[in-house]
Amino acid sequence: MTKAAIDKKRKVHFDPDNVDIIVAQGENLLQAAIDAGAHINASCGGAGVCGTCKVLIKEGKVKSTRTEKLSAEEYKHGFRQACQSSIITDLTVSIPVESRLETAVLAREGKEMAAGVQQPETLATGWRFNPPLSKLFVELPPPTLEDNTSDLSRVLRGLKQQYNLDNISVDFGVIKKLAKVLRDGDWKVTITTLMTGTETQSDGEPRLTMINIEPGDTRGKYYSLAFDIGTTGVRAQLLDLKRGRVLAQGVDYNGQISYGADVITRIAYCQKRGGLQRLQKTVVTTMNGIIKELLTQAEVEMEDIGYVVVAGNTTMLQLFLGLEPKYLRLTPYTPVANFMPLVRANYLGLELGEHVYLYALPSVASYVGADIVSGILGTGVHQRKKLTLYVDIGTNGEIVIGNSDWMVTASCSAGPAFEGGGIKHGTIATDGAIEQFDINPSNFEPTISTIGDTKPKGICGSGLINIVAGLLEAGVISQNGKFNTDLHTKRVREGSDGYEYVLSWAPETQISKDIVITEVDIDNLIRAKAAMYAGCQTLIKSVGLTGNNLEQVIIAGAFGSSLDIEKSITIGLFPDIPRDRFIYIGNGSLLGARLTCFSTDMLDEGEKVARMMTNFELSENTTFMNNYIAALFLPHTNADEFPSVSKRLATGEKVN
Amino acid sequence: MTKAAIDKKRKVHFDPDNVDIIVAQGENLLQAAIDAGAHINASCGGAGVCGTCKVLIKEGKVKSTRTEKLSAEEYKHGFRQACQSSIITDLTVSIPVESRLETAVLAREGKEMAAGVQQPETLATGWRFNPPLSKLFVELPPPTLEDNTSDLSRVLRGLKQQYNLDNISVDFGVIKKLAKVLRDGDWKVTITTLMTGTETQSDGEPRLTMINIEPGDTRGKYYSLAFDIGTTGVRAQLLDLKRGRVLAQGVDYNGQISYGADVITRIAYCQKRGGLQRLQKTVVTTMNGIIKELLTQAEVEMEDIGYVVVAGNTTMLQLFLGLEPKYLRLTPYTPVANFMPLVRANYLGLELGEHVYLYALPSVASYVGADIVSGILGTGVHQRKKLTLYVDIGTNGEIVIGNSDWMVTASCSAGPAFEGGGIKHGTIATDGAIEQFDINPSNFEPTISTIGDTKPKGICGSGLINIVAGLLEAGVISQNGKFNTDLHTKRVREGSDGYEYVLSWAPETQISKDIVITEVDIDNLIRAKAAMYAGCQTLIKSVGLTGNNLEQVIIAGAFGSSLDIEKSITIGLFPDIPRDRFIYIGNGSLLGARLTCFSTDMLDEGEKVARMMTNFELSENTTFMNNYIAALFLPHTNADEFPSVSKRLATGEKVN
Repeated sequence: MTKAAIDKKRKVHFDPDNVDIIVAQGENLLQAAIDAGAHINASCGGAGVCGTCKVLIKEGKVKSTRTEKLSAEEYKHGFRQACQSSIITDLTVSIPVESRLETAVLAREGKEMAAGVQQPETLATGWRFNPPLSKLFVELPPPTLEDNTSDLSRVLRGLKQQYNLDNISVDFGVIKKLAKVLRDGDWKVTITTLMTGTETQSDGEPRLTMINIEPGDTRGKYYSLAFDIGTTGVRAQLLDLKRGRVLAQGVDYNGQISYGADVITRIAYCQKRGGLQRLQKTVVTTMNGIIKELLTQAEVEMEDIGYVVVAGNTTMLQLFLGLEPKYLRLTPYTPVANFMPLVRANYLGLELGEHVYLYALPSVASYVGADIVSGILGTGVHQRKKLTLYVDIGTNGEIVIGNSDWMVTASCSAGPAFEGGGIKHGTIATDGAIEQFDINPSNFEPTISTIGDTKPKGICGSGLINIVAGLLEAGVISQNGKFNTDLHTKRVREGSDGYEYVLSWAPETQISKDIVITEVDIDNLIRAKAAMYAGCQTLIKSVGLTGNNLEQVIIAGAFGSSLDIEKSITIGLFPDIPRDRFIYIGNGSLLGARLTCFSTDMLDEGEKVARMMTNFELSENTTFMNNYIAALFLPHTNADEFPSVSKRLATGEKVN
Repeated sequence: MTKAAIDKKRKVHFDPDNVDIIVAQGENLLQAAIDAGAHINASCGGAGVCGTCKVLIKEGKVKSTRTEKLSAEEYKHGFRQACQSSIITDLTVSIPVESRLETAVLAREGKEMAAGVQQPETLATGWRFNPPLSKLFVELPPPTLEDNTSDLSRVLRGLKQQYNLDNISVDFGVIKKLAKVLRDGDWKVTITTLMTGTETQSDGEPRLTMINIEPGDTRGKYYSLAFDIGTTGVRAQLLDLKRGRVLAQGVDYNGQISYGADVITRIAYCQKRGGLQRLQKTVVTTMNGIIKELLTQAEVEMEDIGYVVVAGNTTMLQLFLGLEPKYLRLTPYTPVANFMPLVRANYLGLELGEHVYLYALPSVASYVGADIVSGILGTGVHQRKKLTLYVDIGTNGEIVIGNSDWMVTASCSAGPAFEGGGIKHGTIATDGAIEQFDINPSNFEPTISTIGDTKPKGICGSGLINIVAGLLEAGVISQNGKFNTDLHTKRVREGSDGYEYVLSWAPETQISKDIVITEVDIDNLIRAKAAMYAGCQTLIKSVGLTGNNLEQVIIAGAFGSSLDIEKSITIGLFPDIPRDRFIYIGNGSLLGARLTCFSTDMLDEGEKVARMMTNFELSENTTFMNNYIAALFLPHTNADEFPSVSKRLATGEKVN
């Protein structure tokens, strides 16, 4: 090949997105898909080990390595791993349904969130509606020769006289437009102030900064944004600070998914040149898209947004803020900062007014982030004497135990099974994901239902829990997770990865392949739930208590309302205690971020919560390892830990 | 002319600068000169009324209007006002010596400033050497699994343990580089803090902000800049904050001169589209040039500068900060802000590190600026019981009277005579300006000396005072400023503007023209000194005192050490009180800015001084007008006000 040929530009077309991109010959196909904006999965971030970025080359040629993630037959039919392929000629590429990210399910989640909007924030109590962002209207006497003090002094004097405000700092941006705004408004203006002094303030005096000034009375238009930046999804709400209401909600996949499904892969990506900058920009693009959508939904002008509160796990926050994440995953796992100073939103790339500051909720440690602090804050765990277990389920599980007097926390790496990762037909919770599962105990035929009520294309995390619980109760698998091969059903069969159960036959699926759950999948789920349970158990025991002491269990996480608590207990994910002690809250992180926009009390309490949490590192803890090994059984090797489940399994009873 | 011809590009060459510029046909010639960086005067900012931008068109054609500022003969010989000319063809343009700005005199001034460098700051007393910018070295224990708090918490803990520092704010820029710097420095780092909480702080606690962090121990490299932004010249010093010394000094013309000599013309220029932005950028360019020069002189790296303090009159500060100056010159004369928040230096365009903040000293009113506050601060007027008159002489004269208990201030528009403006052969204090003048009382022949000891090209402000005093004492002019036409000398003659005295015959000059002082010039000076004196008198009387009560008179201003106090009293500029009460300080504004870099005491006191000054508006005050009219005489219509001068004039005695 000549040098000239190498320099050639190639056109790549992606279906079903129907987008084109022109790239240099030799460019990586996954990168081209990301750059073209084609929705594609890439759980491992392009390392070639997950197989989720499988695509079909319909026309043209790529240079590609076949890994074990691609069968010889798939390879023959033109399937390639996008991350392992470089572009040779012009291409037409089809992204198969199982490799696609779809936003429909997130949109549904948005609707569910919206349905709950008007509900009172009942868990956290005692907070006043008193947003850190305020708008104050002042009428000033115009200057005269006898009273020709500076414009700024006149405004400060007005604030003192009309609101008894003193000691207010002033942003230079306000000074820049002061002269014009005062005269445009005929000496009647609205001043926006932000409480900027909580982090290190010991004198108890709130520190206020004047961040904006507008002509006339604009107190009616006064909004903020609350964000939860999740590893998988980014969720936001547009809040009316005058009326204390959620005006609109939005959710989208975190664009960083294309660079890896989990935080570790993304941290690794940041070690590439420009990697951190790219991931930072990517999540900001996602957030800007959501902001635009929220503004349209609520018919609010961008200029009227005055404040942003963001929660998220420590890695997501560091990536969003552009802070080197390397040391989060290297022992001894140190974050850059648990308490962040206010940052200007548009310094980070958010498309908001120049005056807008962003507040990131505080974190506790590398793997106990602001999302957990926010959840505890939003559910008021720190306000009650009631001993509470707070669990946030995800690829990383976070656990908090405590009450208003003390709080301990830990995180454990559950692996990606709860989000459908590492599962043969696993998928994130998207349209076509099998969510509900029931099994006929006489003929072992399943009844399944999917998100979006479409043909199935895979299994999501909550579906996986329901399936394994169902198979266990029906005796299709035993308590060690192995298949009972004596049953009279062709649903249980030997596959390429050992025994498996067919959930859906090829013709009934979107992917024209049998959708199965394998012993390897079940094993992955057992390891995930064992890690979560062992984490809880270790933490509970470390403070001299048992599961029965827990007066309340709050479950948060990406599952939202589709997690079945009873079945989760059946597989041994949660302790076997009275079910009425469990509460679902869905996304706890966003809840706390919202309340922080509504109340300076929350702003103060968030920092108090972060400071009162004692973090336990489980990763190198031997008790945790022992508990983990004991939990590698359904529900547990020690039947006494799960009395009601053990009794039911022994009697062959079924719950629902 | 066709459209194509109009769009043509033209090349303009300027001598003696020897610079070329390509511009569109039709472009204004003054603008082309400014853009080309040719040094040119334009006192009126291009309005065509001052005649200082006169140029000689040596080759090519311009389209130009002839105003009264250009004689028919000059016009015939090819002289044009650059501001009144548009470019038709390629040009070769010569800027004559009287239209040029030259920096040699400012360089001399720089040397004079340097000579005073090691002198103690004796006037202001009681301040501790305690810069608002600090560098702190901390050694931190590296993180372990048992102590894996965040990087930021580790640093804050170190500051608490090693320096008992609490309540410190942190700039996001520090967070951004924190992880890398801590590890690069092997957990030994130097932290830069800035006192950021003086303006509105009432609790007396200093508010510190961590603005930078560097690996290792960098306490030895720790510098700041002090600036005085004058209407004509910009002066700066590079300060070593570790040793409390001035390392280098620099001075240059304020590039805005090309847009007008006085503040009023520049404020008017800002009403043009993009005018304010252009003037802002222009002065920043001047300042960047000085910074570069200072760094080279002192062999200091840009990164090691941590702080900038700026003083200047209210208009200069507002233009530098990009703040609308319109209302400074419209009644009731309101500045945007007397107390400015800290601003990031590179937000303003200064070529300094991202972490550098700029502090602007406070002002009192539209025409009593930070330069005066800085001068009072630097000379300690506010610290002593001694009743002091502080006068800053310039196009705008500022006057302060008071002591440690009280202070009143006023400004009066003296007109440009003190800076050589509005004078037939006037010039700013540059090479060739007549500075010293002596006259032989028998034959009325003069002895003159010029700045730079070159052939004369004009008369600067201090020269004008010396000449008028000399002519008065020799009886060449009478006390009303009119020429005695009975003298036997051809030096006194009738010219185009009435009677005049020839200071230098054409062959002895740089401009090949007789250099004269006219009755109109003398009248202009009388009006300027009358305004200053009436200002002082009005202010003194307004507080129930007389000139004799003054225990100290401090003179500041652009004259620097070339102002002759005795002769200034002779013409009635300063009150006729014992000469030993007078002190020269040269540039008071820069003095205060320097001390503010050296001491947080000064930072606090500067704000106290600004707040304790009561401003008197003289512009519409009838007492001032009466005093002004009474002062339109040499030295004054009331001889009793100037007993020693009156006695001398009566006896024909001469002082020096």
